[in-house]
Amino acid sequence: MDLGQTERLMPVLAAVKDMIAHEIAPLDSEFLAEVPIGDRWTFTPRQTEILEGLKQKAKDRKLWNFWDTFREGPALNTVEYAYLAEEMGKSHLAAEVFNCNAPDTGNMEVFSRYGTQAMKDQWLAPLMAGDIRSAYLMTEPQVASSDATNISMSCVRDGDHYVLNGEKWWATGAGDPRCAVYIIMVRTNADAPRHEQHSMIVVPADTAGIEKLRPMQVYGHDDAPHGHFHFRFKDVRVPVENLLVGEGKGFEIAQGRLGPGRIHHCMRAIGSAEYALQLMCERSVSRTAFGKPLSQLGENFDIIAESRMKIEQARLLCLKAAWMMDQGDKKAAAPWISQIKVVAPQIALEIIDQAVQMHGAAGVSQDTPLAHMWTNTRTLRLADGPDAVHRRQVARAELKPYTQGQNAPVG
Amino acid sequence: MDLGQTERLMPVLAAVKDMIAHEIAPLDSEFLAEVPIGDRWTFTPRQTEILEGLKQKAKDRKLWNFWDTFREGPALNTVEYAYLAEEMGKSHLAAEVFNCNAPDTGNMEVFSRYGTQAMKDQWLAPLMAGDIRSAYLMTEPQVASSDATNISMSCVRDGDHYVLNGEKWWATGAGDPRCAVYIIMVRTNADAPRHEQHSMIVVPADTAGIEKLRPMQVYGHDDAPHGHFHFRFKDVRVPVENLLVGEGKGFEIAQGRLGPGRIHHCMRAIGSAEYALQLMCERSVSRTAFGKPLSQLGENFDIIAESRMKIEQARLLCLKAAWMMDQGDKKAAAPWISQIKVVAPQIALEIIDQAVQMHGAAGVSQDTPLAHMWTNTRTLRLADGPDAVHRRQVARAELKPYTQGQNAPVG
Amino acid sequence: MDLGQTERLMPVLAAVKDMIAHEIAPLDSEFLAEVPIGDRWTFTPRQTEILEGLKQKAKDRKLWNFWDTFREGPALNTVEYAYLAEEMGKSHLAAEVFNCNAPDTGNMEVFSRYGTQAMKDQWLAPLMAGDIRSAYLMTEPQVASSDATNISMSCVRDGDHYVLNGEKWWATGAGDPRCAVYIIMVRTNADAPRHEQHSMIVVPADTAGIEKLRPMQVYGHDDAPHGHFHFRFKDVRVPVENLLVGEGKGFEIAQGRLGPGRIHHCMRAIGSAEYALQLMCERSVSRTAFGKPLSQLGENFDIIAESRMKIEQARLLCLKAAWMMDQGDKKAAAPWISQIKVVAPQIALEIIDQAVQMHGAAGVSQDTPLAHMWTNTRTLRLADGPDAVHRRQVARAELKPYTQGQNAPVG
Amino acid sequence: MDLGQTERLMPVLAAVKDMIAHEIAPLDSEFLAEVPIGDRWTFTPRQTEILEGLKQKAKDRKLWNFWDTFREGPALNTVEYAYLAEEMGKSHLAAEVFNCNAPDTGNMEVFSRYGTQAMKDQWLAPLMAGDIRSAYLMTEPQVASSDATNISMSCVRDGDHYVLNGEKWWATGAGDPRCAVYIIMVRTNADAPRHEQHSMIVVPADTAGIEKLRPMQVYGHDDAPHGHFHFRFKDVRVPVENLLVGEGKGFEIAQGRLGPGRIHHCMRAIGSAEYALQLMCERSVSRTAFGKPLSQLGENFDIIAESRMKIEQARLLCLKAAWMMDQGDKKAAAPWISQIKVVAPQIALEIIDQAVQMHGAAGVSQDTPLAHMWTNTRTLRLADGPDAVHRRQVARAELKPYTQGQNAPVG
Repeated sequence: MDLGQTERLMPVLAAVKDMIAHEIAPLDSEFLAEVPIGDRWTFTPRQTEILEGLKQKAKDRKLWNFWDTFREGPALNTVEYAYLAEEMGKSHLAAEVFNCNAPDTGNMEVFSRYGTQAMKDQWLAPLMAGDIRSAYLMTEPQVASSDATNISMSCVRDGDHYVLNGEKWWATGAGDPRCAVYIIMVRTNADAPRHEQHSMIVVPADTAGIEKLRPMQVYGHDDAPHGHFHFRFKDVRVPVENLLVGEGKGFEIAQGRLGPGRIHHCMRAIGSAEYALQLMCERSVSRTAFGKPLSQLGENFDIIAESRMKIEQARLLCLKAAWMMDQGDKKAAAPWISQIKVVAPQIALEIIDQAVQMHGAAGVSQDTPLAHMWTNTRTLRLADGPDAVHRRQVARAELKPYTQGQNAPVG
Repeated sequence: MDLGQTERLMPVLAAVKDMIAHEIAPLDSEFLAEVPIGDRWTFTPRQTEILEGLKQKAKDRKLWNFWDTFREGPALNTVEYAYLAEEMGKSHLAAEVFNCNAPDTGNMEVFSRYGTQAMKDQWLAPLMAGDIRSAYLMTEPQVASSDATNISMSCVRDGDHYVLNGEKWWATGAGDPRCAVYIIMVRTNADAPRHEQHSMIVVPADTAGIEKLRPMQVYGHDDAPHGHFHFRFKDVRVPVENLLVGEGKGFEIAQGRLGPGRIHHCMRAIGSAEYALQLMCERSVSRTAFGKPLSQLGENFDIIAESRMKIEQARLLCLKAAWMMDQGDKKAAAPWISQIKVVAPQIALEIIDQAVQMHGAAGVSQDTPLAHMWTNTRTLRLADGPDAVHRRQVARAELKPYTQGQNAPVG
Repeated sequence: MDLGQTERLMPVLAAVKDMIAHEIAPLDSEFLAEVPIGDRWTFTPRQTEILEGLKQKAKDRKLWNFWDTFREGPALNTVEYAYLAEEMGKSHLAAEVFNCNAPDTGNMEVFSRYGTQAMKDQWLAPLMAGDIRSAYLMTEPQVASSDATNISMSCVRDGDHYVLNGEKWWATGAGDPRCAVYIIMVRTNADAPRHEQHSMIVVPADTAGIEKLRPMQVYGHDDAPHGHFHFRFKDVRVPVENLLVGEGKGFEIAQGRLGPGRIHHCMRAIGSAEYALQLMCERSVSRTAFGKPLSQLGENFDIIAESRMKIEQARLLCLKAAWMMDQGDKKAAAPWISQIKVVAPQIALEIIDQAVQMHGAAGVSQDTPLAHMWTNTRTLRLADGPDAVHRRQVARAELKPYTQGQNAPVG
Repeated sequence: MDLGQTERLMPVLAAVKDMIAHEIAPLDSEFLAEVPIGDRWTFTPRQTEILEGLKQKAKDRKLWNFWDTFREGPALNTVEYAYLAEEMGKSHLAAEVFNCNAPDTGNMEVFSRYGTQAMKDQWLAPLMAGDIRSAYLMTEPQVASSDATNISMSCVRDGDHYVLNGEKWWATGAGDPRCAVYIIMVRTNADAPRHEQHSMIVVPADTAGIEKLRPMQVYGHDDAPHGHFHFRFKDVRVPVENLLVGEGKGFEIAQGRLGPGRIHHCMRAIGSAEYALQLMCERSVSRTAFGKPLSQLGENFDIIAESRMKIEQARLLCLKAAWMMDQGDKKAAAPWISQIKVVAPQIALEIIDQAVQMHGAAGVSQDTPLAHMWTNTRTLRLADGPDAVHRRQVARAELKPYTQGQNAPVG
């Protein structure tokens, strides 16, 4: 069970670290400062220059599409990717610069595994090239989407078309003017068995009948120009070919979509935590109160030590989950994925919050990235299912050996 | 030790509750929705209409200036005020409607106790009437202001004037166009003993040399039009009469300023927590997942119960601290004030965060007041000194009996 | 809502404190040191001398039966009693010295409220006088007794007698040679509705057919000579008159039994916590490491402050629950009782454990009372129902207003 | 960084698991039940038969001295040993059966690295063979031994002898009648620099002048016949050859002694936690309350899931610390060792306590091993230095890069 950095990873990791530290992170603030200029939902020329310039550099250096762990050829495995993703968690722009940003990575996996050749040509190729972006429309405002069987956007066949009606929200990335296509979870047959009612369908962003109701806010942030949108679909028509795989395959695809991608955000969260600890340490040795550096006051040693211990444990758990994925047995890997989904955001939030506190009022302000890191990380406890659902999965897996053969359902 | 609601309080409390529930809270969202319209730092006509209309009603009903627990006549005591302040914590506008908003209450106390008759006429009277607003400039960006002896804005006498130079930030309320006057902590003599170097001085907001550098953000919110401002003072001159009490009296006044006012925000935080629990309960019985209302899933019963237990304990502690204040022995009351300053924000944050989680993605969004409540409450762990400083005070008080007579300094 | 110490309480409280500090606590260790001498389940002459000597003194001073808050005449109320019980929590022998020890207080309440005159003469009088002791047999080894409807000891009428069969365990106090009578929860009719199947019956300790299987241990302690016994009942016959009130009244009596007595142990737990904090402080200022007193190292200030804040909150909550009881509305008081049952043991355990840690290896040893205090307190999280059951009660009460009228069962 | 089970480990691990499950663990209770028979500090014939019988079997199967990771030949490394030690943590007798018990493993390391040939012949050989046992005398009652520079037992040269005077306590294993030799930390020169005052010396258990004052208790347990003893040394004389390495080398040897052995107890604690989780799961599916198995009530799913996540993280951290040790750079490994020393006991205590709670009253009793597991594990938070000291080490290591070159001491 090798969880370490491999020989082949090391130069890649060094290049990624170096590019983030010296080329990407230094432009984060400038990029974000352009957001309020003009229409929040377009890119300013400077934003385009920054982002596309960095992307081109990354592509030229072959620091691109690392997430694609299952492609042919000498692709990195999930353990190796984890080390890279962690670094990307330390900068606002980094994931996109390397074309490793959500939700595109998951969507690319869907097209790659379940798409027709036409879809691959039309959508996968430009996504892989970083020319367009995409969104994934799953969650709905009226139902508890943590129980995905509740998803209720209707999708009815009408001749050669499907017609979609309903609302979706939290369509992350849908504000981006480059966002060209949506993959959508819909209900095609409310009378089918519980896990066969749903399907996945591909809808171009410019299809008639799609109304952008409003950008959702995260603790007051709209995260423009990327954004999280609330949509209303009214008689949105797409050709039947746009349905992925077949009616009733929605859950199967959702599971597949969330392969390695399921823990990319965990890896990045650990990177955020590591960065927050770094800021905390820098602050603790440079700021003085009551005649001493903060590091020597009260429980600050304990806070720093606990932060280090939590990060190391979470990182190892994340690497172990990645390693389980790399073994290829999805069922065996599942509880490990659930575990890290609970642990990574939780410890990152704790450590970021401690770093905020160590910075005093500066910590909650725009003068450090901490406040923004916290609100971003907070959504992870919900974005891919609430903690409670993942803990439920872990518990069910744990109890299985004790109940099998007893005919007693676990819960 | 009567911590209950007195006979005389009951009708007042009922009137306040009623006005908040039926007249103030329903306008909170409309008021906030006007913020992005035009210049964020002016009031729209509708904002003025809402706020001044409500204030006039409150004044007409004599629901006004409750905070003034020490005035002549049948003023409420601090325990009684606590019940009112808690209610105000449940609505964005309520505290200001009743003229009980920070930092004005504390500033009015300063003028009342330490001001000259001229100051009372010029500033106290219109503040008591709700005609102007004020700010309190204490914290500075370059020093750890949790240790207030670090405060370093210079204030040098030059003939009949004092000349101020330096920076202040987190001047809450200074963005408000009605904000007419600042009370400022300055260093008048760096060579005096540690606690006699500082003074308080009154500076009209329109004095020459005051530069508003920028609004500070709290987790991305600028809280316009109220705001938290970062100022630079360059050769700002005020008459010597503007100095409060005398040179070197800064700490004495700061202590006095933070009389009952020290725990108003704790009382309001408990109100926020109570409101968050209410939202949590409503959600838990109305939302269904996995075939059950959320209330019946997993640890949700435990979360609700723990929230209730934390609120009750914090409220009782707050009432006890208020009661200690009402006894008139400031030294005896001090550790109780420190205790509630740690406890109230902490439990409110925990409960609001649980309520966020119970709401799923809606919890972090603009569709509930929870996200905004959380960011507001988070600042309380810093605004009036970080938790760690208050805990330090509690510990020192606790250990005093064990070390007295030992000539051993406690810490 | 007066939660303070009343005029009439003050001299009593002073006398109790004084007697504990100077006469009772100093003999705790000597009493406990006699336990291993001879048969653990008899009293040594010195034990008898200590205990009966102290009891006589308490009786002479009218410091006796304080728990009896509902008796005629100038009895103390529950709030007042709370202050006394807290003091008793600081010494091993104190509760018994004042005849305020469990389970006798609860049993005396049962006899007083539900007993016949004959029972009062035979059992209540000598219990009130401290001449005998009693046990309460409720919990059974084979069933989850946290759900009391599971209780299954059979009690079948046979002419003028009832015949009992089954097992009981954790009969606290049953090892005491002075323990003369048991009150027992039995199932008289397994076919009745869920809450009418059970009854309470009085059984003299020397009745034929009762077998003491073994003393139960609490973290290795048998708590001799008091003890917690595991019994087997085989055809144990008692006259029908021994049944309390009537068949099917078991739950009603159990509720009544656990009136004020329900929170006596909470009050004492708070006393234990207070005592642990005292030991922690003494240690922290007298022990030196790395050149400083422990109090000044790392997070010890924070630990001391947190302990103080937890105790104050728990104490106020306990007093509030007591006050609710004193108002006479049992239904309204119920959730408050559940709350303090969760809170008091929890905070006491945390504080005792921190005190253990502050003492280093001495903390886990026989050289301080802390280890014994911890194991005693740990059982409180189970003894009167596990935490989870009390939290469930609190949550159900909290949610009631949200579900009433909705025909939706809460949980 | 291979943290997995190696090929060569697998058959050994299987044999160890098998022997514990089928031959050792089933005799744990019988062995412990013999303790109160006769003199607690001798072995009963049955105890000897059980223990020596198992040891002989283990030796015959070459399941012996696994701890000796640095010996010549195909010894296991520390990562591999971790898997074995974890299994030993699930049974009371297992560690000793495989001659892997503390404090003998550490003492054997001392003799092996620092002993003369004479010492190796006299003490190391029979210890390796399991024929005698040993104790390590470090901690003293009068000083905070967490700061080892406080150690004050005097050791003065007098001709060809050293003369020892002072007290030691918590000499684990010293009650065992087979315990033949002590390794003792003493102060040979109070005037030397802080870290050169101390030495290590070998003292046969039967040397004149050694008084066994009393067995120390751990939450009331004396752990006979093994025990933790309090000693008084009065003019105890040993030949100068008994001094290890040289005067002033005490700290150097203490560091060396605590090589891999430093985390053996962490590995075993993880085994205990795993065993507690197993008992918790078994209980949760087999016990019913309120009409459901406990597993389906309230937060029990969450408790089980959190336990699993804590164990996995702690195990990985332990394996990483072991791997760091195996790399041979002691300085680099040190903070990892400190980390796991904090984490392993903490999570084990939490999980054992949750398992106790899930078992209701049975959990605190002698009917499950949980209560004993808890008290044993609780001492680990002190035995090898309190948590706070380890956290301090972690924090200092963390802050080093931020302060180096600044001439600012970290704390």
